[in-house]
Amino acid sequence: MQSLYEQLENYSETDYYPFHMPGHKRNEDLQFSNPFHYDITEIEGFDNLHHSQGIILDAQKRAALLYNSSETHFLINGSTGGLLSAISSCTTKGGTVLIARNCHKAVYNAVFLNELINIYTYPQKERKFCVNGGLNIKDIKQLLINNKNIQAVVITSPTYDGIISDIESIAIEVHKFNIPLIVDEAHGAHLGFHSYFSENSISKGADIVIHSVHKTLPSLTQTALLHVNGNIVDRDKLRKYLAIYQTSSPSYVLMASIDNCINLISNKGKELFDNYVSNLSHLRESLSKLKNIRLVSENIVGNNDIFDLDRSKLIISVKNTDITGKELYLKLLNQYHLQMEMVSGDYVLGITTIMDKIEGYNRLIYALNEIDNEIKSVNNPLSDDTIIKPQVSHSIANCNNLDTVNLKLEEAEDKIAAEYIYLYPPGVPLIVPGEIISKELILQINTYKKIGLQIEGMSDYAGNMIKIVGKE
Amino acid sequence: MQSLYEQLENYSETDYYPFHMPGHKRNEDLQFSNPFHYDITEIEGFDNLHHSQGIILDAQKRAALLYNSSETHFLINGSTGGLLSAISSCTTKGGTVLIARNCHKAVYNAVFLNELINIYTYPQKERKFCVNGGLNIKDIKQLLINNKNIQAVVITSPTYDGIISDIESIAIEVHKFNIPLIVDEAHGAHLGFHSYFSENSISKGADIVIHSVHKTLPSLTQTALLHVNGNIVDRDKLRKYLAIYQTSSPSYVLMASIDNCINLISNKGKELFDNYVSNLSHLRESLSKLKNIRLVSENIVGNNDIFDLDRSKLIISVKNTDITGKELYLKLLNQYHLQMEMVSGDYVLGITTIMDKIEGYNRLIYALNEIDNEIKSVNNPLSDDTIIKPQVSHSIANCNNLDTVNLKLEEAEDKIAAEYIYLYPPGVPLIVPGEIISKELILQINTYKKIGLQIEGMSDYAGNMIKIVGKE
Repeated sequence: MQSLYEQLENYSETDYYPFHMPGHKRNEDLQFSNPFHYDITEIEGFDNLHHSQGIILDAQKRAALLYNSSETHFLINGSTGGLLSAISSCTTKGGTVLIARNCHKAVYNAVFLNELINIYTYPQKERKFCVNGGLNIKDIKQLLINNKNIQAVVITSPTYDGIISDIESIAIEVHKFNIPLIVDEAHGAHLGFHSYFSENSISKGADIVIHSVHKTLPSLTQTALLHVNGNIVDRDKLRKYLAIYQTSSPSYVLMASIDNCINLISNKGKELFDNYVSNLSHLRESLSKLKNIRLVSENIVGNNDIFDLDRSKLIISVKNTDITGKELYLKLLNQYHLQMEMVSGDYVLGITTIMDKIEGYNRLIYALNEIDNEIKSVNNPLSDDTIIKPQVSHSIANCNNLDTVNLKLEEAEDKIAAEYIYLYPPGVPLIVPGEIISKELILQINTYKKIGLQIEGMSDYAGNMIKIVGKE
Repeated sequence: MQSLYEQLENYSETDYYPFHMPGHKRNEDLQFSNPFHYDITEIEGFDNLHHSQGIILDAQKRAALLYNSSETHFLINGSTGGLLSAISSCTTKGGTVLIARNCHKAVYNAVFLNELINIYTYPQKERKFCVNGGLNIKDIKQLLINNKNIQAVVITSPTYDGIISDIESIAIEVHKFNIPLIVDEAHGAHLGFHSYFSENSISKGADIVIHSVHKTLPSLTQTALLHVNGNIVDRDKLRKYLAIYQTSSPSYVLMASIDNCINLISNKGKELFDNYVSNLSHLRESLSKLKNIRLVSENIVGNNDIFDLDRSKLIISVKNTDITGKELYLKLLNQYHLQMEMVSGDYVLGITTIMDKIEGYNRLIYALNEIDNEIKSVNNPLSDDTIIKPQVSHSIANCNNLDTVNLKLEEAEDKIAAEYIYLYPPGVPLIVPGEIISKELILQINTYKKIGLQIEGMSDYAGNMIKIVGKE
């Protein structure tokens, strides 16, 4: 039996090209030596992440300078630790929070831990490619007016697919109520470093911004940044929670990789991004010429608004063709050894970064051209573009104390869910504990299963049984 | 300005010998290559820590087999993530928990997050060397009888200093109430692998045991294991919390290092431990011949009981000599380039592991012999062996919602603390939020400051100001 390490090393010797995280793309220009060589702890001359005064503080200041942030924290328990800390510090137990429905599971976990009441704003659905769009400012504004007890607003931008909401306008509305805007910008750590991409949310007035540096920049998996700006957030309380949700033995290997990433962008960012954008725009241009496969290249039109698209993400759609997203994903993987980040019903998602190689882009262009010639356009009716908005019966925390029982999904109509169901990746919930399971939801889940998407959260791991509130 | 990575690499090129964590001691036999080479995410063929079915599950099973545990989880947010998960899953919000006073900060944080009422059992004080001793079974038994609503018992064994409590007897008492015993065995991941050391707590009947594999075994910092045994713990609930407190992007580098460590012990453990014990017993024997400096080599006598000593820990005492622990620590560091793990009032602590080199031991023997000749025995009166047991006014969670104000420590007598004060390392609290600050405590803190120990937690970082409950 091979060890994990051997399996990882063997994989890295194959010719599979990564259009996925981590953003360093296993690029050999990133020359770290054996991690056992420099993995130390808080000894003399070194520093303590949870009370930084020396070299970690200096490194965090370098990151703050690069992002033009007033205070920046290194995160070594991923964006997860940052989201838990941000939400815990901006709310009180039992308080109310406005969250975008397409927030990451960690946001829901923070709601649970703090026994919060969560009010949702739903993303708009884009009709042409059936991608989730951005958030509606009017909706957020109205929810804030109707619920004066909201303590914080938490949204995700860019989405996993790269859809960017209008943070500037949202921040203005949120700040009218003197509450903080927390932006999960985990997928947008690269924003602001080149005019080809949007500015990041720090420059747009968000109070807390969280960046997974491992996702779109070259840092090791599990590393992230938390930026705080403005005067609304209680920074002492935030630091207290960062020390609660993150290990008291933080890895210097992970911290050094964040610092390395920051120094690389600070010193060579212009050259790296210029080169990257040149290659990426060539790639996008080439892919725009495909006949049947379509690269989402325009801004995304939602029900009411137009949203910026993060062009580092490749949304490659086979809508209105005779293959599914899953079939495209498997062809790219098995025939061309191109590993994509994610597959959805009608499209696959690829992640590009400054660490990509032109060879990888050329392989993708070649592969998609071949596949494009093999498939046919069909005139599919518009896919279902409705977003199901389940009715809430209990809060997530309240639901935790109730008796539960397992039921076949088909028999769960009108029952109250006692667990999450979500598509993985990206881990956005279809249903949340305490919500009522509708007929539409059951149909939707069955459709997802049929087209081969990965359903997570259900107690049997297979998507057949669901835990509901009730007794045997 | 040097990057963090450069500073770490430079340090590893120096001749400072590590008598501290991590347990791998930067030993070059541990041959991992550049971590960027094999740092991947959950792609095809790989596995998801939070829902492991493939290679991570296999690796976890190898760990369970080695430790003879029924279920073992890899932890990538340190023992911290394991302690938060264990306590959260074994209690209900607002419930009651019995904890040893000398538990790690993470245990207190779990109490806070779950709004628990915590009842303390205090460790015994050892009189001869002024080391904290182990726990008193009769005390635990009485507390369990007096407080029928206790939902779980949480203790630390070995302590940071290596004092081992009688887990077997404690487990028997705890199980009479059908509640789980959670043992923070973070400092004892090496126990059970050689007859020179005690058995571990899994074999002694604990329900949840947490091992920091980075502390006393060769794995990267921030890695740990959580073992579950018996039928008392709700394992589904435990897994749910593990997915809450740990990042959704776990590092394969960290996980591979855990697996590497497990495989090393499984395959070469006998040889490595035989060799280690041979060197260590020679080291301990040599140090036992010092005239003034004394190595704690016997079992530890508390007020009522005798406790096993984990002989991998070197408690090197200068009690009854004309130097302090801090002076010994600085001599070893600056004159001999021997970095110890910790300094206390009268002693320094060194950590030894299977990755040590005989050269390091010889350097320590040489240094301590030289220092031993330079110093004199003095007939100090017995150090103060009382443990201060502060009176509790509010629970930790309740205290969180009260107004607070900063006060000079000297003026805080009889006030209610609104923050922790603890000695670092190991991070065991002297006072906890909600407790009343006594005159004795103020004197004790001032003594610690005078002899150069690191006081942590106080709002000004300098040990002068303390946050108390009250208004301006």
